Amino acid sequence: MTRRLVGADRTSAVTCEFEDITEEAAGLVQEGTSDLLGDHYSDVHAPIANVRADCGRPERESSAAAQFWSAALGVPARADSAEPQFTSLVGAVDGLATVVQSVDDAPRMHIDIETDDVDAEVDRLVRLGATEVSRWLQCHVLRAPGGHLVCVIPVHSDPDLFAATARTWS
Amino acid sequence: MTRRLVGADRTSAVTCEFEDITEEAAGLVQEGTSDLLGDHYSDVHAPIANVRADCGRPERESSAAAQFWSAALGVPARADSAEPQFTSLVGAVDGLATVVQSVDDAPRMHIDIETDDVDAEVDRLVRLGATEVSRWLQCHVLRAPGGHLVCVIPVHSDPDLFAATARTWS
Repeated sequence: MTRRLVGADRTSAVTCEFEDITEEAAGLVQEGTSDLLGDHYSDVHAPIANVRADCGRPERESSAAAQFWSAALGVPARADSAEPQFTSLVGAVDGLATVVQSVDDAPRMHIDIETDDVDAEVDRLVRLGATEVSRWLQCHVLRAPGGHLVCVIPVHSDPDLFAATARTWS
Repeated sequence: MTRRLVGADRTSAVTCEFEDITEEAAGLVQEGTSDLLGDHYSDVHAPIANVRADCGRPERESSAAAQFWSAALGVPARADSAEPQFTSLVGAVDGLATVVQSVDDAPRMHIDIETDDVDAEVDRLVRLGATEVSRWLQCHVLRAPGGHLVCVIPVHSDPDLFAATARTWS
């Protein structure tokens, strides 16, 4: 089974070397996790695709949040006319989609991992200790160790960008 | 009064144009906020410096989170021996420090805005609608409209990097 992951950062992940980990940090990595890290380390690409600021409904909450973050970060807020619950903060972080959205939950932030093999990536993250929370369309919501949410989503980047930047690993 | 803000992204913010905002998004920007945006728009730089995944104590929570995110993102986890509550995920996003840390609170994510004039930046964000929550050393914790936390922190990037990348605005 092969997965290709697209990253927020198109260059830095491949420069990371396991030797960069300090003694203290190496001590954080359990044997099982270390094995998984070692299996994938040489060619996995940092797979964060989006950072999403989730706001409680009603939509005026996310509208107020979008207004604030647009002004605070000095970037345009671009609503998605097809999916009005999403407002992008254009250019807040290079290569990383930063989005304010409405959710039926308390305010939170989460990241998305974009992949062309959602089931395989969900399986990988569950083996790393995440637990499945819910599914919305093709988005799988997981809770990571430590309590944060992470969503695994199908590729939505430009296909050429995905093809040019994704890493393949078995 | 002059502030210099360092951004996660060294290039994209200056390419953003107000005209990029769609009609829908323009409708999100209140007049007062729009005035602030207009005042600063030409030279403000996207000021996100860090994304922090805050984990509840005990420290084993953040240790488990650091192990997971290091393996999930395929990047090294580097502990800070001077401040063991912080573990950096090295290279997760180019130009953006991604940190797992222990806090006396529920799991959450927040961003830091780094500046060489903390008081002025706090004032600016409060004028945009944020409320002051607490202060820890030189870190001011604010709650943004929509309910998310944002910390305003003094410059901690390499001084040459800060000087080379920060924008100045009055």
